Amino acid sequence: MGIRVAVAGASGYAGGELLRLIAGHPEFDLVAATAHSQAGQPVAAVHPQLAGLDVALSATDPAALADADLVFLALPHGQSAALAAALPEPVRVVDLGADHRLRDAVAWARYYGGAHAGAWTYGLPELPGQRTAIAAATRVANTGCYAAAVTLALAPLVAAGAVAPADVVAVAASGTSGAGRAAKAHLLGSEVMGDLSPYKVGAHQHVPEIKQATGAASLSLTPVLAPMPRGILATVTAVPTGAADPRAVLAEAYADAPFVHVLPEGTWPHTAATLGSNSCHLQATVDVDSGRVVVVSAIDNLGKGAAGQAVQNANLMLGLPETTGLPIFGVAP
Amino acid sequence: MGIRVAVAGASGYAGGELLRLIAGHPEFDLVAATAHSQAGQPVAAVHPQLAGLDVALSATDPAALADADLVFLALPHGQSAALAAALPEPVRVVDLGADHRLRDAVAWARYYGGAHAGAWTYGLPELPGQRTAIAAATRVANTGCYAAAVTLALAPLVAAGAVAPADVVAVAASGTSGAGRAAKAHLLGSEVMGDLSPYKVGAHQHVPEIKQATGAASLSLTPVLAPMPRGILATVTAVPTGAADPRAVLAEAYADAPFVHVLPEGTWPHTAATLGSNSCHLQATVDVDSGRVVVVSAIDNLGKGAAGQAVQNANLMLGLPETTGLPIFGVAP
Amino acid sequence: MGIRVAVAGASGYAGGELLRLIAGHPEFDLVAATAHSQAGQPVAAVHPQLAGLDVALSATDPAALADADLVFLALPHGQSAALAAALPEPVRVVDLGADHRLRDAVAWARYYGGAHAGAWTYGLPELPGQRTAIAAATRVANTGCYAAAVTLALAPLVAAGAVAPADVVAVAASGTSGAGRAAKAHLLGSEVMGDLSPYKVGAHQHVPEIKQATGAASLSLTPVLAPMPRGILATVTAVPTGAADPRAVLAEAYADAPFVHVLPEGTWPHTAATLGSNSCHLQATVDVDSGRVVVVSAIDNLGKGAAGQAVQNANLMLGLPETTGLPIFGVAP
Amino acid sequence: MGIRVAVAGASGYAGGELLRLIAGHPEFDLVAATAHSQAGQPVAAVHPQLAGLDVALSATDPAALADADLVFLALPHGQSAALAAALPEPVRVVDLGADHRLRDAVAWARYYGGAHAGAWTYGLPELPGQRTAIAAATRVANTGCYAAAVTLALAPLVAAGAVAPADVVAVAASGTSGAGRAAKAHLLGSEVMGDLSPYKVGAHQHVPEIKQATGAASLSLTPVLAPMPRGILATVTAVPTGAADPRAVLAEAYADAPFVHVLPEGTWPHTAATLGSNSCHLQATVDVDSGRVVVVSAIDNLGKGAAGQAVQNANLMLGLPETTGLPIFGVAP
Repeated sequence: MGIRVAVAGASGYAGGELLRLIAGHPEFDLVAATAHSQAGQPVAAVHPQLAGLDVALSATDPAALADADLVFLALPHGQSAALAAALPEPVRVVDLGADHRLRDAVAWARYYGGAHAGAWTYGLPELPGQRTAIAAATRVANTGCYAAAVTLALAPLVAAGAVAPADVVAVAASGTSGAGRAAKAHLLGSEVMGDLSPYKVGAHQHVPEIKQATGAASLSLTPVLAPMPRGILATVTAVPTGAADPRAVLAEAYADAPFVHVLPEGTWPHTAATLGSNSCHLQATVDVDSGRVVVVSAIDNLGKGAAGQAVQNANLMLGLPETTGLPIFGVAP
Repeated sequence: MGIRVAVAGASGYAGGELLRLIAGHPEFDLVAATAHSQAGQPVAAVHPQLAGLDVALSATDPAALADADLVFLALPHGQSAALAAALPEPVRVVDLGADHRLRDAVAWARYYGGAHAGAWTYGLPELPGQRTAIAAATRVANTGCYAAAVTLALAPLVAAGAVAPADVVAVAASGTSGAGRAAKAHLLGSEVMGDLSPYKVGAHQHVPEIKQATGAASLSLTPVLAPMPRGILATVTAVPTGAADPRAVLAEAYADAPFVHVLPEGTWPHTAATLGSNSCHLQATVDVDSGRVVVVSAIDNLGKGAAGQAVQNANLMLGLPETTGLPIFGVAP
Repeated sequence: MGIRVAVAGASGYAGGELLRLIAGHPEFDLVAATAHSQAGQPVAAVHPQLAGLDVALSATDPAALADADLVFLALPHGQSAALAAALPEPVRVVDLGADHRLRDAVAWARYYGGAHAGAWTYGLPELPGQRTAIAAATRVANTGCYAAAVTLALAPLVAAGAVAPADVVAVAASGTSGAGRAAKAHLLGSEVMGDLSPYKVGAHQHVPEIKQATGAASLSLTPVLAPMPRGILATVTAVPTGAADPRAVLAEAYADAPFVHVLPEGTWPHTAATLGSNSCHLQATVDVDSGRVVVVSAIDNLGKGAAGQAVQNANLMLGLPETTGLPIFGVAP
Repeated sequence: MGIRVAVAGASGYAGGELLRLIAGHPEFDLVAATAHSQAGQPVAAVHPQLAGLDVALSATDPAALADADLVFLALPHGQSAALAAALPEPVRVVDLGADHRLRDAVAWARYYGGAHAGAWTYGLPELPGQRTAIAAATRVANTGCYAAAVTLALAPLVAAGAVAPADVVAVAASGTSGAGRAAKAHLLGSEVMGDLSPYKVGAHQHVPEIKQATGAASLSLTPVLAPMPRGILATVTAVPTGAADPRAVLAEAYADAPFVHVLPEGTWPHTAATLGSNSCHLQATVDVDSGRVVVVSAIDNLGKGAAGQAVQNANLMLGLPETTGLPIFGVAP
């Protein structure tokens, strides 16, 4: 008999990807998948890709969730804290929402608003020391999707002193699933196909999270919606210090990370290669005109940017090998 | 130590998908992946989604392949027969090409041309009796991609006498990976995005294969290239006899088939739900105006239409459960 | 001073395309663009592609519309009849909705429901005698989008006795703009990209319209949603009588039609070539296995399938050359 | 009788768009459309969107081109100079290639290589004084596509002293038509759909052109291939001086430019709104964390980035209003 896991918020895109990963995980038994307006429906009615999975969505009931060994919270931002508080301490929790990511209450207030629920252990295992911290935690705050892509590109460079922490400039484009499943006119297929569209320009809520995780002192992040369902491509530029070769720093930092691949020199990451996987692809160079370091990272926003990352954290929290049940390879073309 | 498998023609799209499935297969060890012009390159240079897979492509050498327990041939049509003939009989072979699908030499000559290599056991396990035949065979001819989609929709209806074998009309649209990886101007992204484009209208080479596999006596098949990398949606219409309810016939025929899902009434298949999986989704109804039966099937052309199907056949040939290492669930959205 | 035109329902996709065509029309002056919930907004806030067009949406007021020489109604189905009744007879009206297309009240009740508003002159100028009828009419019912694509492919063949009127089978795939601009979850970009999805299988409301317009006696029409914003590709098959060569019949029928192009033999229509234009591309052949005639037609569903067609009708009603202000050439790639 | 124009290099994507614009231009008569390997073919065989245009491609013959009043050169980079040299001086020439854009021979050698053909009048009418210069020129070098997007966003800010000329960082994503029509495996639809892919990272050839046109002293430009046929979205960030409000500077600079639209505050440009047009949409803000100015510009790479720009230049050279025959509004959705 396996480890009992549950998903709260199973009707959204991250929830659906969690169900897919859990169904293929050799150690996990799904004991509950909860939703709000769609409670009572078969999972496959909400996630047609899971046809054949004989599970129904149930209402979000803390008592039912408390019966699990580990609960994934894939709720809209701001709704995790209350539910998590209702789960007894031995129940491990991975929160895919933003509620418990930020240590700085001022930054929370500025970018999210409302009461600050306090920070949990930050769920990016590839940061120094973080695997150990996650393994010891019962509550883990999963990364934001843009935050995962930018932090993996940047954190080792700041830590190694290879780039200045100030004046980091990032532009990151995401597939539309990152905008969620709520029916909004500007997210209709007719609108997004054939279109690149920037949003939250000048003030994206992942900025304080990335600064906290990387040590960057100043960050301009411009997010762009791209005409594809999944994937994030982040272009991160910073001013090099000359103290170390950026690509070598990245290669060294991730030498033992099974999901982070610094590509061979001259090969650049692209999002399609990560689709469906928990991998992050990285490459770096120095711009000949400006002298800036340019790092590009690619992830699947529902994989390493959400559900895959969450399962990786869960594996660590439960004492399993971190790769258990997680695809390293993408589905392409 | 696992079962030794090899892939000939590993640089194409079906070859890449085979490598992905083999990498995730708990019983298979990849012993060779061969290619023509790209021999010598690391697999990940040719298939970026396989970054982290430490295998190089080798030249196509029958001696090297003969060392495997089972060889997948993912070669251009017309190139399998010679290579297969060079592999000793104990080596099991699954041919993803068309060379050994047709029993009728005249049909071969008409649609493919050149010498007819003769027919092998037909690799569609869901046809009556075919699981047993495949399990007993050492040489299996995998289905064509359109053939898989149309045959799964049609064969049980003809067999049950629920539709007339004459006057079947099918229109099937495919993602572009079905057209292969050779660089052709009409397959450029600039051309195919935003575009639906019919081709081989009036004479597609899968017609005789479908007629052979289903018992249809007459078939109009119009293939359409659709703006997506993967997926086939086949709309198959036929004249009902009134002898049986079409949907019930399909549900009965596939009750024990792990990869074929007749959806709940009123729910229609769509291709994205099958992406990356070996599943086929089906639904049927009767058109109110014409009285025709309309069956729609959706598959991933590289999954149930090629590499997934091939692994399913290999599993059967090797005495493994047919689902071993094969995803039932799609990657969506 | 030009001809005064107005658009009711200007906030939808067909409405936006009407505004674009009117802005480029050398004889039309836009005097009103009305909308429901978005009244008061600048047009460019609703249709960003019209940035620079200094017009605001107003509330739908029959008195304001009555001031125009011609009014385009681009309202949801069922809302045209009441508004049209409030416009005095000298005001010419082109209704892009379905309200006045069907002569048969029983068919109306079956496919649309509600009171039957009665039929207006049918707005497909390429049908025999229809240019004259449209020129003489003050009220014209624009075609449905699928109806335009299928009728242009089929009508001359039935009229010439080249195909049997019974047993016509059509599968037609449309870009997502055909599904309208209302925010619905299944039309989100995340859902439709990479996906082909059939809908209203077995009972589409354009069936009686196509039968009325073509003389077909029986029609199976399966619509499919395709991953592109615009375009319809219709594959129409029918049983030939042998009385005439299908392609020659089409070429003859449209020899003088400026917007219908029967392509050179062997060249097949594809939707991207018609984007943004009012053109229809056609080709026909006979299927070698089934002997059926296969005709493929491609249009832009917002062009020849809606707004372009409407302007063409308006030109005829107003005594202008039918091509005035209408693009014949598509925007590609 | 109209102005006689010719297109050399008519078989590529920019060439096709030129032919479309010329066909709709009220003053232009097309007297020659030349191509290399496809000479002799009807235009519609090469550009299916031009079905109905009764013109054949001819071989590239300077004598034939010399008969025109104005010649558009849409040749691969490096091939314009020789052909232009063979055209007598009274024949006006707009070169869509890079050959005559750069004044700096060292920069030419560094980014393009080969002999430097020398600079012509730079074809961006919206730069200060440039309309007059273009009107007086017989030879004009059209902008690069990325250069048009970035320069329109940046030039007024540098000129006004609103941003520092050093440390400009731009990330610009382009539709695939920008990569041309040559059949290359990495540009196949199967590869590019669902994918974002950076290229020429750290050293793009438009960098010196943008620096020359804007006065920027240092520029990091990262280009990304996006899954759509057309459109460029450029995100340009720079360090503000505080001397002027960036958005106000842009609005002032383009107050009289018919094709450049600084959108209402809070509305951000997106590429689909510019498809098929010669317009550029702009917006600017200041990033709350970094204090950088962020300007986003959107164009159609074949419109304002190539063929539309070329026709605008031609209009000016020929004494026509610059908007003649050019669409301001995009084709959307």
